[in-house]
Amino acid sequence: MSHFVDELATENNTKIVFLVLDGLGGLPVKGKKGTELQVARTPNLDSLAAESVCGLMDPILPGVTPGSGPAHFALFGYDPVEANIGRGVLEAAGINLPLTDRDVAIRINFATRDAQGNITDRRAGRIATEINQRVCEKIRRNVSLKPDADIILETVKEHRAALLIRGDALGGDIDDTDPQKLGVPPLEPVANTPGSEKTVALVKKFLDQAHKAIADEPNANTVLLRGFAKHKPYRSMYERYKLKSLAIANYPMYRGVAFLLNMDLHPVTRDTASEFQAVKEKYDEYDYFFVHVKGTDARGEDGDFDAKVKVIEEVDTLLPALTDLNPDVMVVTADHSTPAAMSGHSWHPVPVLLKSDICRPDLVTRFDEISCIQGGLSRMPSMQLMPIILANANRLQKFGA
Amino acid sequence: MSHFVDELATENNTKIVFLVLDGLGGLPVKGKKGTELQVARTPNLDSLAAESVCGLMDPILPGVTPGSGPAHFALFGYDPVEANIGRGVLEAAGINLPLTDRDVAIRINFATRDAQGNITDRRAGRIATEINQRVCEKIRRNVSLKPDADIILETVKEHRAALLIRGDALGGDIDDTDPQKLGVPPLEPVANTPGSEKTVALVKKFLDQAHKAIADEPNANTVLLRGFAKHKPYRSMYERYKLKSLAIANYPMYRGVAFLLNMDLHPVTRDTASEFQAVKEKYDEYDYFFVHVKGTDARGEDGDFDAKVKVIEEVDTLLPALTDLNPDVMVVTADHSTPAAMSGHSWHPVPVLLKSDICRPDLVTRFDEISCIQGGLSRMPSMQLMPIILANANRLQKFGA
Repeated sequence: MSHFVDELATENNTKIVFLVLDGLGGLPVKGKKGTELQVARTPNLDSLAAESVCGLMDPILPGVTPGSGPAHFALFGYDPVEANIGRGVLEAAGINLPLTDRDVAIRINFATRDAQGNITDRRAGRIATEINQRVCEKIRRNVSLKPDADIILETVKEHRAALLIRGDALGGDIDDTDPQKLGVPPLEPVANTPGSEKTVALVKKFLDQAHKAIADEPNANTVLLRGFAKHKPYRSMYERYKLKSLAIANYPMYRGVAFLLNMDLHPVTRDTASEFQAVKEKYDEYDYFFVHVKGTDARGEDGDFDAKVKVIEEVDTLLPALTDLNPDVMVVTADHSTPAAMSGHSWHPVPVLLKSDICRPDLVTRFDEISCIQGGLSRMPSMQLMPIILANANRLQKFGA
Repeated sequence: MSHFVDELATENNTKIVFLVLDGLGGLPVKGKKGTELQVARTPNLDSLAAESVCGLMDPILPGVTPGSGPAHFALFGYDPVEANIGRGVLEAAGINLPLTDRDVAIRINFATRDAQGNITDRRAGRIATEINQRVCEKIRRNVSLKPDADIILETVKEHRAALLIRGDALGGDIDDTDPQKLGVPPLEPVANTPGSEKTVALVKKFLDQAHKAIADEPNANTVLLRGFAKHKPYRSMYERYKLKSLAIANYPMYRGVAFLLNMDLHPVTRDTASEFQAVKEKYDEYDYFFVHVKGTDARGEDGDFDAKVKVIEEVDTLLPALTDLNPDVMVVTADHSTPAAMSGHSWHPVPVLLKSDICRPDLVTRFDEISCIQGGLSRMPSMQLMPIILANANRLQKFGA
């Protein structure tokens, strides 16, 4: 489907502000009158909803609880099942390592092992990021896979790092070497398919050299390799939709997804107010503004209903900073639900509102999961939203005669 | 999907009246209390809606604005993307040229060129249809592609004609020869794929001979070729659904689509009242009546909100002529939206009502885009409607044991 819509996409000078309140969808809990969104006082979101077409969206498929990666791909109109990527690629993208189609991406956990080679700490005592940087530098200086491959190694934080093995015809179908328990040595890397055997040979060479290089480290004296993934580049937001896109997001995961779609990344900002301010500052330079608010998800994960309500109310108070720009299309939605009642992601569909001068408003006058059931968008997969946004921005040509 | 449903279709003596109000869907405009349908006084449609199951339909996909061709294919249960056809085929079908699977169909614009061969009028001064007929006759008498191919050439109207090149192994992947500007000669026909090279050779032969034949014409002394399309025949409405179908439509485009699906074509009638009368007259002879009303779309294209309201109200007044026949299934819907506010087609979903004795009515008591959101059909792609119609007509067998 996506390919067919892409061919209709056309340039225009219209502006789209796409506000994602991470994990916004919720559930009622005892003693509260409804979900987090229902309980929150949200006069700005409600009056926006009254002028919008509203609905509910399933991030992946009904009943499927998504991770943040696929849930965001769906919001950008990419098939979340097809676009689903290994953790290695997400980790590398999260620190904006420039990935190529010759790369196998791998997450590294630095770990501690004893004289017998058995793991005693799977996170190397959560070493400081500065130590991680020093250890990575040691490896970079002492490890080489030339002429078969290059390695790109970068610190993420604490005990985590990202590794790219870059070479020709390298498969990524390799299981983790993390045994997920203590008192045993790391697992040997094993190729699940013949196409990954060359990579496994290179990984073994990497491990031999890296272990020698960091043998004298008190904590980080071994590495566990996880989330092997061959990188397949995505068609960018510009290639697909002709949208010059800016991502305003403060967490590596979301910056990573935006990076993979070749959006420009705004520098990390202090808070939601600064994020909204960034839209205003960059308003003339871009067509599409992806604005990501993390607090709703974080407080949901904490299981803190009241705190999540408070984040929603803060966003509502700040909302005029975006709506006063009067974008041609204003969207507020979520990647997935994170009900405080569940302290984690869930499959529940997420509310969405879309306002434009030509959106055909419905009868919904309150932005919450229950009111939006009555909306004109009805219920649909999240990945169907992007064509509707483009249509409302007058950026899709007619199909057929 | 369609193939699977087709196998369940079975004969019956039930009657289906399928009323399409072209471009019915609308948008609210300032100073009016809602959309065209909301503003229109429609007591008959409303009481029909109260006995119906209602909903909203996306002609192609959410966000995609359709042309009339694919939008109608979807209403007849044909995948609108797969069934999408070149303009050449639509033009030929519109004047009911009998197409075969050996045909490449091409739209012709007669044009004027000067002594240097440069185009001075892309529409040959919009010559009268009678002149077009005379020029076509000249070409038919003087042009031959035998033994490689036959040509079928027919006047459409004014400067427009339809051409079929009929032969073996002819591809249709050829760009227009219309340069879309004046002061330059027509473009040379170019094959985009090797399979169309044979056709291009024939087209060049056609052009050489035709130019000689019409060299002395004051206005129509050259032709521009557009919308090259290889014809792939469709499975007919009868083959797929066992429906003896009559199309009651007054415009070439809709007659053309019906023709391609092998519906019988009622002679062109004077007005909507005559169209409805035709259903009554032919009621015993057919199972399925496609009744097409153009005025809603035409007034929407004009951007005339009030005139579109008036067309809707006229249809409502005439509606008892259809409902008094008491068909087993009565459907009222649209191919797409043509909001007066946009003076053109749009992507907005269209309202649908379906009445039968076994339709499970919902709470909708007003036939408009906003009320139908609450309907029992919810929101669905237009191409899913046909199986529901067949089911309500007791024309679909059970699937599986």
